Amino acid sequence: CDFLFFLESRYLSFDDVLTWSGVSAATPTEEMNGAGNLMDFLDEPFPDVGTYEDFHTIDWLREKSRDTDRHRKITSKSKESMWELIKSLLDAWSGWVVMLLIGLLSGTLAGVIDLAVDWMTDLKEGVCLSAFWYSHEQCCWTSNETTFDDRDKCPQWQKWAELMTGHAEGAGAYVLNYFLYVLWALLFSFLAVSLVRVFAPYACGSGIPEIKTILSGFIIRGYLGKWTLLIKTVTLVLAVSSGLSLGKEGPLVHVACCCGNLFCSLFSKYSKNEGKRREVLSAAAAAGVSVAFGAPIGGVLFSLEEVSYYFPLKTLWRSFFAALVAAFTLRSINPFGNSRLVLFYVEYHTPWYMAELVPFILLGVFGGLWGTLFIRANIAWCRRRKTTQLGKYPVLEVIAVTGITAVLAYPNPYTRRSTSELISELFNDCGALESSQLCDYINNPNMSRPVDDIPDRPAGPGVYNALWQLALALIFKIVITIFTFGMKIPSGLFIPSMAVGAIAGRIVGIAVEQMAYHHHDWIIFKNWCRPGADCVTPGLYAMVGAAACLGGVTRMTVSLVVIMFELTGGLEYIVPLMAAAVTSKWVADAFGKEGIYESHIQLNGYPYLDVRDEFTHRTLATDVMRPRRNDPPLAVLTQDSTTVEDVETLIKDTDYNGFPVVVSRESERLIGFVQRRDLTLAIKNARQKQDGVVSSSVVYFTEDAPQLLASNPQPLKLRRILNLSPFTVTDHTPMETVVDIFRKLGLRQCLVTRSGRLLGIITKKDVLRHMAQMMNQDPESIMFN
Amino acid sequence: CDFLFFLESRYLSFDDVLTWSGVSAATPTEEMNGAGNLMDFLDEPFPDVGTYEDFHTIDWLREKSRDTDRHRKITSKSKESMWELIKSLLDAWSGWVVMLLIGLLSGTLAGVIDLAVDWMTDLKEGVCLSAFWYSHEQCCWTSNETTFDDRDKCPQWQKWAELMTGHAEGAGAYVLNYFLYVLWALLFSFLAVSLVRVFAPYACGSGIPEIKTILSGFIIRGYLGKWTLLIKTVTLVLAVSSGLSLGKEGPLVHVACCCGNLFCSLFSKYSKNEGKRREVLSAAAAAGVSVAFGAPIGGVLFSLEEVSYYFPLKTLWRSFFAALVAAFTLRSINPFGNSRLVLFYVEYHTPWYMAELVPFILLGVFGGLWGTLFIRANIAWCRRRKTTQLGKYPVLEVIAVTGITAVLAYPNPYTRRSTSELISELFNDCGALESSQLCDYINNPNMSRPVDDIPDRPAGPGVYNALWQLALALIFKIVITIFTFGMKIPSGLFIPSMAVGAIAGRIVGIAVEQMAYHHHDWIIFKNWCRPGADCVTPGLYAMVGAAACLGGVTRMTVSLVVIMFELTGGLEYIVPLMAAAVTSKWVADAFGKEGIYESHIQLNGYPYLDVRDEFTHRTLATDVMRPRRNDPPLAVLTQDSTTVEDVETLIKDTDYNGFPVVVSRESERLIGFVQRRDLTLAIKNARQKQDGVVSSSVVYFTEDAPQLLASNPQPLKLRRILNLSPFTVTDHTPMETVVDIFRKLGLRQCLVTRSGRLLGIITKKDVLRHMAQMMNQDPESIMFN
Repeated sequence: CDFLFFLESRYLSFDDVLTWSGVSAATPTEEMNGAGNLMDFLDEPFPDVGTYEDFHTIDWLREKSRDTDRHRKITSKSKESMWELIKSLLDAWSGWVVMLLIGLLSGTLAGVIDLAVDWMTDLKEGVCLSAFWYSHEQCCWTSNETTFDDRDKCPQWQKWAELMTGHAEGAGAYVLNYFLYVLWALLFSFLAVSLVRVFAPYACGSGIPEIKTILSGFIIRGYLGKWTLLIKTVTLVLAVSSGLSLGKEGPLVHVACCCGNLFCSLFSKYSKNEGKRREVLSAAAAAGVSVAFGAPIGGVLFSLEEVSYYFPLKTLWRSFFAALVAAFTLRSINPFGNSRLVLFYVEYHTPWYMAELVPFILLGVFGGLWGTLFIRANIAWCRRRKTTQLGKYPVLEVIAVTGITAVLAYPNPYTRRSTSELISELFNDCGALESSQLCDYINNPNMSRPVDDIPDRPAGPGVYNALWQLALALIFKIVITIFTFGMKIPSGLFIPSMAVGAIAGRIVGIAVEQMAYHHHDWIIFKNWCRPGADCVTPGLYAMVGAAACLGGVTRMTVSLVVIMFELTGGLEYIVPLMAAAVTSKWVADAFGKEGIYESHIQLNGYPYLDVRDEFTHRTLATDVMRPRRNDPPLAVLTQDSTTVEDVETLIKDTDYNGFPVVVSRESERLIGFVQRRDLTLAIKNARQKQDGVVSSSVVYFTEDAPQLLASNPQPLKLRRILNLSPFTVTDHTPMETVVDIFRKLGLRQCLVTRSGRLLGIITKKDVLRHMAQMMNQDPESIMFN
Repeated sequence: CDFLFFLESRYLSFDDVLTWSGVSAATPTEEMNGAGNLMDFLDEPFPDVGTYEDFHTIDWLREKSRDTDRHRKITSKSKESMWELIKSLLDAWSGWVVMLLIGLLSGTLAGVIDLAVDWMTDLKEGVCLSAFWYSHEQCCWTSNETTFDDRDKCPQWQKWAELMTGHAEGAGAYVLNYFLYVLWALLFSFLAVSLVRVFAPYACGSGIPEIKTILSGFIIRGYLGKWTLLIKTVTLVLAVSSGLSLGKEGPLVHVACCCGNLFCSLFSKYSKNEGKRREVLSAAAAAGVSVAFGAPIGGVLFSLEEVSYYFPLKTLWRSFFAALVAAFTLRSINPFGNSRLVLFYVEYHTPWYMAELVPFILLGVFGGLWGTLFIRANIAWCRRRKTTQLGKYPVLEVIAVTGITAVLAYPNPYTRRSTSELISELFNDCGALESSQLCDYINNPNMSRPVDDIPDRPAGPGVYNALWQLALALIFKIVITIFTFGMKIPSGLFIPSMAVGAIAGRIVGIAVEQMAYHHHDWIIFKNWCRPGADCVTPGLYAMVGAAACLGGVTRMTVSLVVIMFELTGGLEYIVPLMAAAVTSKWVADAFGKEGIYESHIQLNGYPYLDVRDEFTHRTLATDVMRPRRNDPPLAVLTQDSTTVEDVETLIKDTDYNGFPVVVSRESERLIGFVQRRDLTLAIKNARQKQDGVVSSSVVYFTEDAPQLLASNPQPLKLRRILNLSPFTVTDHTPMETVVDIFRKLGLRQCLVTRSGRLLGIITKKDVLRHMAQMMNQDPESIMFN
């Protein structure tokens, strides 16, 4: 995804700044009983205090502390008057209001996207004469043909060739339709990539790696902005409609997070606190998955398991609320006309049998292998894109891939249609009235046909034909998806992965079904499959395969099974899904721990400290801290012997984000930490407003001014900007503990001491660098977890 | 629950020990590259190292560090030989094996308990002549009566009076049945309380408060032992069968946790590491809820939301596996003969309407009020039991309550039967064939009757009769449950709470139904309830009421809704459930933040640091640390000037669990922390084995021996038992940060420094005491969260 170049270049230029980021002074100091809240004081002279620069890491402890301050202030004020009490109640309820709004907007957007994609996908093939804004299905809705197949050919819907030449059949019509299909696809994708390129470079990709990084406490301004929201919604429709091998599910999470960010700006509680904002974004991610799959519980678990970093129980509850509201909003829009939230919702009626676990586990193995292959190939291709000339021509790349996709996809009916429709057909069990090629079984004419319980039948020629086409579609999807994911358009990975698995699963399912039919006397079938019974459901195999492949790529576990469970609506099928998901994860993990999102995070070098990576090496804090052995000593300030000029020189000469303050250079006893930003502003302020502060003034951080000669200029007291509770560890602390502390407390940096003396500093970036180093040294050690 | 007296007395006597608990030396020191792993060295001389004493708090960071050590060792060994590789693979898989075993055993136990309860509950009323081990339903299973009511009266099943006197009807038979019912009830409860009292005092109560405390890192030896498992299983059956107002759901969680603990002992990975053990216990709790409600996903969320403290993603996945295995084991036992995991599984067929949200929300309000009332009354009663003579006669108390319950319950058919059956009947929609009193509607004779879609009908006399009986049952349940929960028998709270809610809900449901039927022209019904339509489902109201009451008592949120959702099997009804659960929680929270479990934890004074309590006060570490202003100074050791005798005196005179080590008493610069236990053992060891160590020997913790005169005896080096990375904060650190650190890192204690000088110590207990203090000062400040 192309904006990463931009991001990375900025991020690299901030490299050293990031290395030494500072802790704010926003924690209460002992002045709290005197001059009032520190924030009150700081608010005026330093208007930007409490905000972070772009591409910087936030300090979770500090954000939390600021929120508690704010909350405390509101609570104490609420006793003063009725109006303040109402305000405090409104403040307490604002979280629920934001959730409600997120649910409503993301549900609406999902519905609009579904409707628009439906229409535009069909537009590639033809148009509805009665109303051009109708999709094929809507157009033929009122048609009185009874079977699905006939209804497809309703007279109101005309293919382009028929409309233009009057001939619906024949080679000429086919070629013309083919040509127009490709042309529409190219047009849509060109529009999508151009919009992304010109208006919102952040709108490309699936967005989940970046959202994970943002939720872990990184700032990327504009990534969740209004502009991104608008452009991503529009281009997502275009990209999906163009027939590229991509899905809308991942980008929907990004869209929902943009909604979340948008509504955060309504309440200062969320807009001014990066920690609280991330709680809202976690819930928004849940709402996104909820509408993408019609799975509210699955969405909450996805947010918990896959994207969130800090997920308190309060957020769990609110996420659930947002996810439900979103799901019900989408249902009231009813984009598919069947009261279902997703196209591929399905209900099976026959049970599964123990012996079937063997093919299910084999599908799991396939899913794991596909996951590994996909991640490796895709990362290699993306790296190539970043490092070669290829990355310079994103528009051309999109056009080329769309062209190839469209040209290859049209001849095969299973790739020509939209991927969701394909999955839906593969998941479905063949009912008695089904007329698709996949359901072309030879019926026993003597048999009475109940609608729900059709026994296994021998496959007809249509099924064998479909198997060939599906096999070709499988190869095509596998190859093209590798090149598609990561282009400069919104592109989700869930749907293509599920399609790959569903195709493989359906093929396996039909094979097992036919084996069971023709060889029902084999020992493996004998126990559970009498002739004339409905023993094998190929649609279930497709669903299991889809779960396996999705699991292999993303390494989701519980959320995957729950999402799939919510797609079927019966606890019955959890065991097959679980078996496939477990196998797939184990197989894929054996080749590499990282899912596609973590791989992309690593590829782009985001400062993301994964909660799941276990650090098992025996290094100590002293091995990681700066300065290293041959480095210049740590840049520190002394509590009462540095002059303004010294400080200014230090600020000019270094680009560290903050400086530890020690008692004296000799004793090196740490007393606090001061941020570069605060220091600069405070000195500038003092020079302008405070008489007597000159270059040779002494800066002091102690309570009382130091004893100075009368000839010395007036000293400058800066205790107020000093953070008196910097986080420290001893040099002997094992790195596994340090990593744990960084993760759980969300620190930006941590000072290293020995017997009370300051030795060095460890920043989040140092931790990440060290972890990467150790992983590369000994990748095996983390394998058996 | 009576063992708490015992627990509390022990706990109080350990008070000061707990106050100053020490950190182990098990973290790697700089010797790690030399003499090898520290644990290797410690293993021999101090066999008990790494274990905790009873009623002590564990140190999560240390447990984690120990597990990493163990893991590192196995990984490095695994490269040596094939056998070691296999061993390392077995070790990696042991977690899954434990989960499988937990699932199998807890599923089996749940099934056995269900069957036994079923049989013994019916035994109170009569016996099956064809086979005495059959319950009423099983006895009449083969009976060829068609309707439920007739089948109840199959000839093989005889009531006691009929069997003994030959007369099934009449006043004499009624009195005899009544008398025997009470007698059986008294017998069962007497057996239950005696078994608990004699064999396993820990088997009483629901167990969830204690499990929460254990999972948060407290040690209660034997609480999850084999003996407790056995006795709890047996007495649970007796207690439930005796007809007391209690349920088996909470105790099932305890039983499952006992299973988890049992299987932990099979693998040293879990049995020797208290942190890892707790991961298994979290998963076991999920399995317990899974079988209690037939809700695997709900179980996992319950464990996550309600009982667990440390719940990494890995545990989430494994819990899910254990919960699924347990559910499927239970299903293959099939205790209710209907392929359902719980008696009150239900499927509704009619939708709900927006206007119905009003009664649903009212039920939520009722649930919240009931929750508040129950918690206050129950806690008051339990406090009374603890502080008065009442607590001295637990057997008498149980007998008395059982007697009152049985005598009052028998005359009312809704209280006579088991509470689960009552809930099941209340949840069920009235089908066409239902013959219970609650379904005595007046049918329109002209109406054709589809089975699933019966329109609203006017209530018959049976329904009005049932309403009165239900109202009496409601009052009875509300009162008796308050006195039952907390007696010295296993007693869960879920079922009685749900019963209260279900009764209230059903009453409201019937009222709304009849209103809609008789006044379908009213404006509120006009829009959605045509005459002849099935608009109101009273069973759904019962379920919503049950959710509301359960929510009010336990303050569960997501897990509650998900459990209820799994009981119905349709996303359709999530919104009503959610509305009631939210309302109930808000109403109950307005009167007090704590659920019944937290209240019992507080009542018993367990050292439990709740993740959900937000600390919002502006105190600093310096306000909480010991020593306080007028206390004697902190007991410290110096790094190289304390003699063996000094150390021994210090150990004798104090009962702190550990001592900080400083450079010298003058500089007070902290270098580490040493545990009392290790110190005692090391000195004893040295005195026995090391020549020249006498009382005047200097103990030193530095790398090199101090410079001593030749006349001095040989010094004793103790650096190996020194923890070089004790956790420190500065005295200016706000307490909210300290609380956060304690919670997230699972610390036992933390040292307080200023400018590198040691000032004091804060233990978990200090934190808890301070929080309790601040809460009492200003309870309002936490209300609006």
